[in-house]
Amino acid sequence: MGRPVISLLTDFGARDPSAGILHGVILGIAPDASIVDISHEVRKFAIRDGALLLWCALPYLPVGVHVAVVDPGVGTERRPVAIRTARGDLLVGPDNGLLMGGAARLGGPTAAHLLTASEYRLPVVSTSFHGRDIFAPAAAHLAMGVEVERLGPTIDPASLVASPIPEPEVADAILRTSAVYVDTFGNVKIAATRQDLERAVGPLAAGDRLAVVIDGAEPIDIPWRATFGEAAAGALLLYEDSYGRVCLAANQRDAAGRLGLVEDTSVEVRRA
Amino acid sequence: MGRPVISLLTDFGARDPSAGILHGVILGIAPDASIVDISHEVRKFAIRDGALLLWCALPYLPVGVHVAVVDPGVGTERRPVAIRTARGDLLVGPDNGLLMGGAARLGGPTAAHLLTASEYRLPVVSTSFHGRDIFAPAAAHLAMGVEVERLGPTIDPASLVASPIPEPEVADAILRTSAVYVDTFGNVKIAATRQDLERAVGPLAAGDRLAVVIDGAEPIDIPWRATFGEAAAGALLLYEDSYGRVCLAANQRDAAGRLGLVEDTSVEVRRA
Amino acid sequence: MGRPVISLLTDFGARDPSAGILHGVILGIAPDASIVDISHEVRKFAIRDGALLLWCALPYLPVGVHVAVVDPGVGTERRPVAIRTARGDLLVGPDNGLLMGGAARLGGPTAAHLLTASEYRLPVVSTSFHGRDIFAPAAAHLAMGVEVERLGPTIDPASLVASPIPEPEVADAILRTSAVYVDTFGNVKIAATRQDLERAVGPLAAGDRLAVVIDGAEPIDIPWRATFGEAAAGALLLYEDSYGRVCLAANQRDAAGRLGLVEDTSVEVRRA
Repeated sequence: MGRPVISLLTDFGARDPSAGILHGVILGIAPDASIVDISHEVRKFAIRDGALLLWCALPYLPVGVHVAVVDPGVGTERRPVAIRTARGDLLVGPDNGLLMGGAARLGGPTAAHLLTASEYRLPVVSTSFHGRDIFAPAAAHLAMGVEVERLGPTIDPASLVASPIPEPEVADAILRTSAVYVDTFGNVKIAATRQDLERAVGPLAAGDRLAVVIDGAEPIDIPWRATFGEAAAGALLLYEDSYGRVCLAANQRDAAGRLGLVEDTSVEVRRA
Repeated sequence: MGRPVISLLTDFGARDPSAGILHGVILGIAPDASIVDISHEVRKFAIRDGALLLWCALPYLPVGVHVAVVDPGVGTERRPVAIRTARGDLLVGPDNGLLMGGAARLGGPTAAHLLTASEYRLPVVSTSFHGRDIFAPAAAHLAMGVEVERLGPTIDPASLVASPIPEPEVADAILRTSAVYVDTFGNVKIAATRQDLERAVGPLAAGDRLAVVIDGAEPIDIPWRATFGEAAAGALLLYEDSYGRVCLAANQRDAAGRLGLVEDTSVEVRRA
Repeated sequence: MGRPVISLLTDFGARDPSAGILHGVILGIAPDASIVDISHEVRKFAIRDGALLLWCALPYLPVGVHVAVVDPGVGTERRPVAIRTARGDLLVGPDNGLLMGGAARLGGPTAAHLLTASEYRLPVVSTSFHGRDIFAPAAAHLAMGVEVERLGPTIDPASLVASPIPEPEVADAILRTSAVYVDTFGNVKIAATRQDLERAVGPLAAGDRLAVVIDGAEPIDIPWRATFGEAAAGALLLYEDSYGRVCLAANQRDAAGRLGLVEDTSVEVRRA
């Protein structure tokens, strides 16, 4: 048995001590855990951003316990859960859809449990920091080998709140979707995989010209590229990102800023 | 004996390599240390912010060695110190008040030492990066089991610079205090615990109406809440945060931005 | 044999999951690695910034494998390489100059290899995320003891792209150079060491008055200081930073903002 891996994704921000406190709570219970910080800079309360980042990241992490906390409903009726996946991971966090994109990428949920057993929480549970009081301790105990069944009653995976990551609409040789994530380079992920886009417009090859309608404006002619290097510095491109999703970018520039694209802006793509 | 825990809190910023260098220096001396980053984004030179974050975080970390560096006086006469606490931790950093809030939460200082022994510093000590040259090596040697007495002469804990975290004034059914920390959500910690506020206005229950005077302006009527969920999205609330401190917030919004609250703005609270 | 150390420096940003994914890929191959994050907030595409930060940081890290990814040429012909240094480290990243400042500080390159062997890459190599698909797996395998020769053919270290860190010009008792890095405090590193400056103006002592010409404007009289503490709060100073480089700063203030200094602004220094 090697060291257990526990990953963390939150919207806590790097300045506040909250993420470090999760590390502290975990190491107090599971001193040998390897902790991976996926991100603590998820947009505040943006469950969908968090879900998408888990979707991207989890397949590249070792089998382990993955804690995610983007939790506008903390202190309300929303359920604290642990979800087992087909790959063998356990996902821990609020039942608000946040965990579902990642679970799908790990083979889907095979079981789910509420996190209600007080012996696997901190002695005092606050109303506003369940990451510290419920989720981190649960993850650490799971990493130490506690059976998930002991943390609380089983629930039907079908009852879990669905993933907030939207599916694109494919119709009349047009892909209709929206921007779902603007990364720190200004590259824009739209809610579609390359497969989705090819279902709409047919097989894509480097250099194919596509017409992109952003927020209902005039179409922009943007080429499909296999690599950034095929585009001149500053030139726009559509490409399959390293996760298989369709992205809009400008080589070595901030495409989102240039095109006025933010999360939820509508985007349509057809052949030019 | 498990792996020793060393925590770090600085105002070095995530872009510069300084925090990573602390990790490197520590691992060169204590290869098996578990390093917890509490924050490296403390406001530049804001000793009080750092002190407050340690106050929040340290009770949730395992017993260990805790390094903090917010050090506008680096290269002056201010003393480099290690403080032993009643809980068994060692706090390492400049003697400028930074360590005292955290020490108080770990049972208070029971001993203090100067960090003067050259064999526990890097071979060359710069005038501007004592985190790297003095504090990180000291912490790593302490984590490896070196007795704190060997790092330098004992000093009287009563001679240490006091904590910069202000105490509130309770008088005439009014709590007079100020904002001490605006977190990354825009929630505002005021310099008071729930106990302080209840000494002023009596026992608090969810829904109690309080009058809050910010920077001498007209009072604002803000309810006391037990959970964020009791407030509508965007509504203001006063609540006991997960550390027992009184906070001013707006559910899922940036209260500090909306109310023009920054650190040190005066805040008075009485019953409405 | 202790735990191997792997350091990471990228321009991926803390919000995106890319840096966490590198951790995940590494731990999947080298579960016992100690991973040190030097920075993931290098200015986007700024190879020189990354090179300078490695120059600063690597001497303070244990001998290990150091991965750096600032890679505007990802997906083009630029070569993926591992460089062995005289100190015994291995530096892994794109052959674009990024690794060369750090290599020089570790005794210089003694050998170099292409990273072409598919068994030490992820099964699918994308066109835009070689950090994940090539560099992190290479580093993890090297940390596990795989001989660098097995990762790909040897290349001549003299063929590697040179360091982008400029050298100053010393002439007529004037040092002519430029700003190379503005740190998060607003301190400005210029492209010169103390030795460079002393070759131009002779031996320096605290209090010596220097005339600094920024971007061709009127000279500003700025004293040389041994410590920040010698300068009043807010006062400008020139000093030898903790890496031996010449810096322009304002005690506890943002000198770069005040003087309008950004990377590449020309700076000349002579005696006043």
